[in-house]
Amino acid sequence: MTTDPESVGIIGLGLIGGSVARDLVARQVTVTAYDRDVERLRALGDADLRGITLTSSPRDAANADVLMIAVPVTEALDVLKTVAPHVTRARLIMDVGSTKRSIVSLAESLGIGARFVGGHPMAGDHHFAWSASRRDLFVGAPVYLCPAATTAPDAIAHARRFWEMLGASTTTMDAAEHDERLAWTSHLPHAVAAALAQSLNSAGVSRAELGPGGRDMTRVAGSSPDMWAQIWMDNAAHMAESLDAMEGRLRELRDRIQRGNVEAVREWFEDGRRWFERSERLRERP
Amino acid sequence: MTTDPESVGIIGLGLIGGSVARDLVARQVTVTAYDRDVERLRALGDADLRGITLTSSPRDAANADVLMIAVPVTEALDVLKTVAPHVTRARLIMDVGSTKRSIVSLAESLGIGARFVGGHPMAGDHHFAWSASRRDLFVGAPVYLCPAATTAPDAIAHARRFWEMLGASTTTMDAAEHDERLAWTSHLPHAVAAALAQSLNSAGVSRAELGPGGRDMTRVAGSSPDMWAQIWMDNAAHMAESLDAMEGRLRELRDRIQRGNVEAVREWFEDGRRWFERSERLRERP
Repeated sequence: MTTDPESVGIIGLGLIGGSVARDLVARQVTVTAYDRDVERLRALGDADLRGITLTSSPRDAANADVLMIAVPVTEALDVLKTVAPHVTRARLIMDVGSTKRSIVSLAESLGIGARFVGGHPMAGDHHFAWSASRRDLFVGAPVYLCPAATTAPDAIAHARRFWEMLGASTTTMDAAEHDERLAWTSHLPHAVAAALAQSLNSAGVSRAELGPGGRDMTRVAGSSPDMWAQIWMDNAAHMAESLDAMEGRLRELRDRIQRGNVEAVREWFEDGRRWFERSERLRERP
Repeated sequence: MTTDPESVGIIGLGLIGGSVARDLVARQVTVTAYDRDVERLRALGDADLRGITLTSSPRDAANADVLMIAVPVTEALDVLKTVAPHVTRARLIMDVGSTKRSIVSLAESLGIGARFVGGHPMAGDHHFAWSASRRDLFVGAPVYLCPAATTAPDAIAHARRFWEMLGASTTTMDAAEHDERLAWTSHLPHAVAAALAQSLNSAGVSRAELGPGGRDMTRVAGSSPDMWAQIWMDNAAHMAESLDAMEGRLRELRDRIQRGNVEAVREWFEDGRRWFERSERLRERP
């Protein structure tokens, strides 16, 4: 397929699913979508929703050339089990969750591995739901693609074209490797932001009292609790490692402060600063 | 005094001292400054430095209407001890450190409490040193003013006018209260950013692999190790509390994930999100 897909079914019209739908409608692609809040969405009367055929069951949205499941990761497993027997037409089935091992392995065991490509667009935000979705959300965004062992090369190429059509740049990666990596690059930072927000809350400090650094560090604490709880649970083993490392570094600082050795504290900070500086230098390379 | 000070002595031409100097020179105020890297600064040949009289000892910079000590907090204590016997002329003596209790109490014990007002401009950045200093750094910045018990009302009013002249908005606060508060609003977030940077470094992850959230959360890990080590040491007791709270929240998340209860994990995240939402609502109030 070298042209746009003729029809796309989307299950879940949140930030990601909603933004994909808006981009596709703008490209004259037929979009059929299901959302568990379909009645609330209809009541919005949003003009952008009128380009989308809303269905009253996930199964009805699955009858398309391309099927995209765009609900939080644990729910995505349930949705995939429910719709799998009915996805006879789609040449490509994708999800958009921040963990990939569970869903890719489920697709295999459901016998739809050949047409399944796990996707993870790094386009999240602390705003979420349909109200936060927008055109061009994926322009310039990295998207990880994680095929199953049995995924057909055609389906992988199709998934790559799909995301590139929306402006994203894709990287293909093994699902297990993806989850291990993301436990550090994304899942840990979000947990740290939430823990910092809670700590400040416990001290009676409001976000308005923070400087620019503290405000930046607590921004993603405003993200979706449903989404993040499911991501961390699905990546539990790797999260145990990354949380352990973070606790260890904080404990080490506390110990060094307590021992009263300013040079040891300086050296503690220096380790992270060297890492920061290395990235800045790389970024500035011509 | 309702006009600009006639002469200001600055000890330490880093981000803060350098930016104050640039603003004062632009206002035709006579600026005399000492920096331990004075020879390296002279070698720069920076045009903005030519408006500043560089001295070869801290004591020589202290002979001015206003004296500002702008070096990291532990060093500021040493500098204040060294120059105190020679500060005969200044009607106002200030520092700019992120902790205030130690230096305000030292000023009292040195017998210069009546003329001393501790200052803490919240205008830091992950860039530092003279090369990062710039005009108008303090426009719109909050500055905490912490007088000693014996500070003369005139000196407090003078300090307020000084910072407002540079565009800052001042809040007067007890030094001990300041340090307790800042352990949460600033000192903890910086420690968390550094600990996150170190954790990612330990996993072989580069900053370029992070999403916008992770990049925001590690930005201040690029700050000055000297400065932060001295701040944390000077605020050791309160840092023990704030670091303990942060470790506790992370440990709690790890436990809830391990217990396999997604609802308990969701509730954990929700606590920080409610705090975030409260601040957003306040900010949006007319």
